[in-house]
Amino acid sequence: MNGVAFGAAKGIGRSMGTISKALELLDHFTKARPLIGLSEMARLADLNKATCFRLLTELGENGFVEQIGTGREYRLGPSVLRLAALREAQVPTREAAMPVLQGLAQQTGETAHLSLLISDILRPLAHAYSAAHATKVMLEDTEALPFHATSSGLAVLAFQPEAFRNRILAQPLPRLTSSTETVPAALRACINDVRALGYAESRGGYESDVHSMAVPLFDALGRCSGALAVAALGSRMGEAQRRKIRHALLQAGTEITTLWGGSLPADIATLWRLAA
Amino acid sequence: MNGVAFGAAKGIGRSMGTISKALELLDHFTKARPLIGLSEMARLADLNKATCFRLLTELGENGFVEQIGTGREYRLGPSVLRLAALREAQVPTREAAMPVLQGLAQQTGETAHLSLLISDILRPLAHAYSAAHATKVMLEDTEALPFHATSSGLAVLAFQPEAFRNRILAQPLPRLTSSTETVPAALRACINDVRALGYAESRGGYESDVHSMAVPLFDALGRCSGALAVAALGSRMGEAQRRKIRHALLQAGTEITTLWGGSLPADIATLWRLAA
Repeated sequence: MNGVAFGAAKGIGRSMGTISKALELLDHFTKARPLIGLSEMARLADLNKATCFRLLTELGENGFVEQIGTGREYRLGPSVLRLAALREAQVPTREAAMPVLQGLAQQTGETAHLSLLISDILRPLAHAYSAAHATKVMLEDTEALPFHATSSGLAVLAFQPEAFRNRILAQPLPRLTSSTETVPAALRACINDVRALGYAESRGGYESDVHSMAVPLFDALGRCSGALAVAALGSRMGEAQRRKIRHALLQAGTEITTLWGGSLPADIATLWRLAA
Repeated sequence: MNGVAFGAAKGIGRSMGTISKALELLDHFTKARPLIGLSEMARLADLNKATCFRLLTELGENGFVEQIGTGREYRLGPSVLRLAALREAQVPTREAAMPVLQGLAQQTGETAHLSLLISDILRPLAHAYSAAHATKVMLEDTEALPFHATSSGLAVLAFQPEAFRNRILAQPLPRLTSSTETVPAALRACINDVRALGYAESRGGYESDVHSMAVPLFDALGRCSGALAVAALGSRMGEAQRRKIRHALLQAGTEITTLWGGSLPADIATLWRLAA
């Protein structure tokens, strides 16, 4: 999938402080773009070079970025490792879900991925590829999953408070492919279907040849905090494969929720039992 | 080990910006203190409550902290997970070292730990306990390892540029136990020994009943970026056990350096071959 810059979404409706400006620079690093030069970062963040340099310098002094190589490009620094280890010790999330994610990819023969809702942005956290096909959906370059155009986004939107949904649907909803639904009323109908079914589906809404299915994930506090999805080439998505993926997703979604120390909301548990 | 607040060290000699103030709040979270209320955080960071609240709010808006429970206490947020996963993909560090660390604890029957140098502070990154003894050195509460009072600190100091060493030795060097060396000239002699031996040792300098040994670690850029240590109860540290730990440390240090894509500096490689 190509990265689509949705980083701007967060700033909408409030003025952004220096701390946010600095932290948002970190969001521009992806697997496909691990090194970013000063000029490139300034361009990505829409800042002038002097400001961008000042922010990167303070991030560097705290180990959140570091400069390497002759080009003095920036990459993420080691500080994040210690913080992530502490967070995982307190709230096992990524490490707990990884084996389930790998099983899901293997079972379905397609790319499985998990995303987390972080301050109004749905961010890919982990993915697992299957070796079953030479062609697969790749996620190296994705910084954010647009809510209106992905099955993960729709699954998360469906189980958020109404105010959140209104905020997202009031933002610009870019047409990414000829299949992207961009009309808020139509998206609301779509979201109602997701709530009624307990899972979401997207046929080419993000990339025209990708067909994906997703379920919401619930954390220990009972909030929908992310989504689990399987993304496949549209050409491989026959009826039997859709059934197989749905079945595997509902099972894996239950497992991850349990591993996160949560329990499925009663209505979801019922829907998933019926759909499995 | 008890946490000793060395966070102030970084601020010395330069004024601290808003971004640094916010990021340093994150350093107060430890395994033993995963939840921090507003008043407690303000006290730990030596900030007034209004400023502290403003900083925490911006960190929260970016997913770096979140509030939970009826007490609305703060804990680390999910943003750090994605950043750490990206950093590990680019520079495998913690995940690469974990199996070696676990082997080292098992082999020596004592606590093994790995620390990283992050902007003038030596931070514990990972540790592994051994089940061999009912008593062991615990590291849950340690935010930073003081350079002058730990074997890890001395191992790292010995292989840094002279300017770095001067900066650290010019800072306050608190006496933590009756065995802590606090005289810069004596510490310099000690550091010369470390450079000549290729490993460091501390007998009760941090906690009076803990005896530890450490080796420096080198990253892919050839910099000493951290230390690998074994910490034991002093009462268990006979001559045979010291030899065993030294041998295991030199081997594990070589392994981690290799896993990090680096190679040992030639003089260290020679010292370690002779000492093994």
